[in-house]
Amino acid sequence: MRDLFNQPTDRRGTNSSKWDLLESRFDVPLEDGLAMWTADSDYPTAPCVLEAVKKALDHGVFGYIASLDAYNTAIQWWMQNRHDWTIQKDWILSGQGLGNAIAFCLDVWSNPGDRVVTFNPVYHEFEFKIRKAGRIPVQIPLVRTGDSYSLDLDTAQDMLDGTEKMIIFCSPQNPSGRIWTPEELRAVADFAERNNLILVSDEVHHDFVYPGHRFVPMDVAAPEARERTVTLTAASKTFNIAGMKTGNFIIPDADLRAQLQQRLRALDYTPNRLGIEMVTAAYSPAGADWVDAQIAHLDQNRKTFDTAVNAIPGVRSLPLASTYLAWVDFSGTGMEHEEISQRVRKSARIAPSPGPDFGPGGETFLRFNLATQHDRVVEAGKRLQAAFGDLQ
Amino acid sequence: MRDLFNQPTDRRGTNSSKWDLLESRFDVPLEDGLAMWTADSDYPTAPCVLEAVKKALDHGVFGYIASLDAYNTAIQWWMQNRHDWTIQKDWILSGQGLGNAIAFCLDVWSNPGDRVVTFNPVYHEFEFKIRKAGRIPVQIPLVRTGDSYSLDLDTAQDMLDGTEKMIIFCSPQNPSGRIWTPEELRAVADFAERNNLILVSDEVHHDFVYPGHRFVPMDVAAPEARERTVTLTAASKTFNIAGMKTGNFIIPDADLRAQLQQRLRALDYTPNRLGIEMVTAAYSPAGADWVDAQIAHLDQNRKTFDTAVNAIPGVRSLPLASTYLAWVDFSGTGMEHEEISQRVRKSARIAPSPGPDFGPGGETFLRFNLATQHDRVVEAGKRLQAAFGDLQ
Repeated sequence: MRDLFNQPTDRRGTNSSKWDLLESRFDVPLEDGLAMWTADSDYPTAPCVLEAVKKALDHGVFGYIASLDAYNTAIQWWMQNRHDWTIQKDWILSGQGLGNAIAFCLDVWSNPGDRVVTFNPVYHEFEFKIRKAGRIPVQIPLVRTGDSYSLDLDTAQDMLDGTEKMIIFCSPQNPSGRIWTPEELRAVADFAERNNLILVSDEVHHDFVYPGHRFVPMDVAAPEARERTVTLTAASKTFNIAGMKTGNFIIPDADLRAQLQQRLRALDYTPNRLGIEMVTAAYSPAGADWVDAQIAHLDQNRKTFDTAVNAIPGVRSLPLASTYLAWVDFSGTGMEHEEISQRVRKSARIAPSPGPDFGPGGETFLRFNLATQHDRVVEAGKRLQAAFGDLQ
Repeated sequence: MRDLFNQPTDRRGTNSSKWDLLESRFDVPLEDGLAMWTADSDYPTAPCVLEAVKKALDHGVFGYIASLDAYNTAIQWWMQNRHDWTIQKDWILSGQGLGNAIAFCLDVWSNPGDRVVTFNPVYHEFEFKIRKAGRIPVQIPLVRTGDSYSLDLDTAQDMLDGTEKMIIFCSPQNPSGRIWTPEELRAVADFAERNNLILVSDEVHHDFVYPGHRFVPMDVAAPEARERTVTLTAASKTFNIAGMKTGNFIIPDADLRAQLQQRLRALDYTPNRLGIEMVTAAYSPAGADWVDAQIAHLDQNRKTFDTAVNAIPGVRSLPLASTYLAWVDFSGTGMEHEEISQRVRKSARIAPSPGPDFGPGGETFLRFNLATQHDRVVEAGKRLQAAFGDLQ
C-alpha cells in the first residue's frame, strides 16, 4: 500500500491553492518549484473514500440527505478505535472544517473586544480568525527546551487581565509536531477552569502519530473540564479531503452544545452530501489501514528530510511526534528571515510556510509540508543543502 | 436526451430525505409509495456534471482550492446566456444554497424581533427560517384570481407597522409556479423602496420556464432598486445537486455586498471543492442543452399530471409557468385537509408537501413534485383518481 503515496501526481492546474498559487504568492516558478506550504497532501485520498465517490457517481443523484446517523456512527467508531475515546453520537455537531469551526466558536462564546488566548508559535489561522472576528489575541510564548516546546502557565497567568473568554489550543501542536502529555493537558484544563475560559481543543492532526508516541484527546485527559471543552476534529488532513469542507465539533456538555447548535441552526448550516459520504467511508477499518500505511510513508519522509536539512550547519528540523509539517529552525545560520526566505524561494525554488506567520517564537523558522511523494522530499533536501552550500 | 429522465432509479436506501423519510414522516409505505414532496429530482444530474465528478475522482486529491474565478465566470456566463442578465463576477458571494442564504440575509440585515415580509402561500422554509432567527413573519396574502395569483400591495401596505426590515420574495413563485411580470417586479421593488426594506429575491427556480413564458430577474426588471436588492440563485434545483450545498448571493451594490461579505468572512465560509466543480461544469453550453431537454420532460409530466388530477371533480392543478411543483387545490371537493391528506397518503400511497405549511392560502392545497420519471407521474395520476373515485 506504500506505493499509493509515491505515485507521481501533478496538481498544477487543478485549482490547488498549494500549487496554483506558487508563483503569485511565493514567486517560486511553477515549472520546477516545490509547494510545501498549505497543509494538504499531494497523493490521492484512500481507496475506500474514492470508492464512495464512485458509488455516488454511479447513482448520479445528489439530492437532499435524510440523516447524519451513519456519518455520526462512523465518527464514533473512529474515535473509539483510533483514539480510545468513547463519545456519544449526539455530542457531534457538524461544521465546515477547522477554520469555520474556530470562527463559530469565537462567534458563539466571545464578543468583539474580548481577549482570546493562544500558545505560540501556533497555526497562523488562529490569530487571523481572532482578528477577523474583532477579538484580541493574547499570544502566550511556548518555552523552547532543546528540540521541543513546553508550556509555562505561570507566565500565561501573568499575561491575562481577566477579560479573556477563550483558549484556542492546538493538540497535537502545529507547527512543532508536539504531542502533549495527559499531565500537560490537565494543566491547560485547570488553567481554563481557574480563568473561566472556554477551552477549544483543535485536534485536527490527531491521526498522525509516529512510532513511540501516543496521542490523548483533551476530553480523555481532562474529563472534569467537559463543561467548558469543545473539541474540533476532521478527516480533512488525515484523508486529504480538506476541500470537501466537512468537520466536527465534539461537545459532551449539553448546555455548551445547545448554545452552538442554536447558532448553526439559525444559519441553516448542513454538511454537503459527498463530504459526509467520503468521511463515512474514511472512518472504517479500510480507512484505518490506509492511515497506518500513510504514517509509515510520512515517517520515512520526515527521517529523509531531517537527515538532509540537519546536515546544514545552523539548521535544525525539530523531531516530529505528530503532523506532516516539519518545523525548521534556521537561527543557527545567523541569517535574517528575509535572507533565509530568499535562499529557500529563489535558490531552492521551494515554497514553505513562513515562520513569522505563526506568531512570537516563529521568527527564525520555516514550516515544510512533507505530505508528498518521497522523491519530492529527497529533492527538497538536496535543494536546501545546495541553497545553503556556502555554510559547509 | 429525453430518455435520461425516464431511466428508472431507486433512491431508497441512498440517504435521500425525499424517499428515506417516506414512512417516518408520512406513514406512506416505502415498498410502493411515491415520494412527491422534497424539491429534488429522481433522475441523475447532467452528464457534463457527472463528467466533472469523474475527473475529480480520477485525480483523487481533494485539497484546498486556489480560486473561485472559473466558478464565478461560469455563473456570469449562465446569467447572461440563460437570463439575459449581465452581472459582474465580483457581485457574486458564495453560500451553502437557498436555505443558508436566507438565514444569512436575516442575520445580516435584521435583528431579533424585527418583522419580515413574505407573500403567501409561499415556500414554507421562509417562515421557518424567519422564526428560527427570532424574527416575526408578516404574511401578506396573495390574491387568488382564477388559476393564478396576483399581488395586492395596498393590503400589504396596510399590514405593515413600520418595524419591517426585509421582504423575502419568491420569483418564480413556489408553490404556484407563477412567473411575475416586469411590472409586478417593479411594483414590489417600489414597495420595498417606500418602506425601506431589504429586498431578498429568491430566484432558485429561474431555470424552469415552460414554453410561452419568460422569466425576468428582479435586477433586470428593477435596476433602480439595486441598493436594496439581494438575489439568491443556485444550480441546486436545476441540476439536482441540492445535497452539494452550493449557492450564491448576487449583489450589485458594493455597500450591501460588503456587509454580507464581512459576515461570511468572519465565519470563514468557503464552498466545497466538488460543489463548485459541479456547478462550473453545469453552467455551460452542454448543461444548457440538458436543461432544455429536462424542461421538455417536465412539460410533458405536468401535462400528464394536470390532465389526470383535473379530471377529478373538485380538484384543480394550477397551470405552471415555472417550477416542477404542481400546486393542487382540493377545495372543490368540500373535504377538510385531514381527509384529503389521508386519502392521498393512505389510499394513493403518495407523499406530497402539505399545503398548510405554505401559510395563509395554502389550507386546501397539496404540492406534488413532478421531477421524476414520466411513468411515476402516470402512476400518481391513476392513484389519485382512484383515491377520489367516489367523487366521479
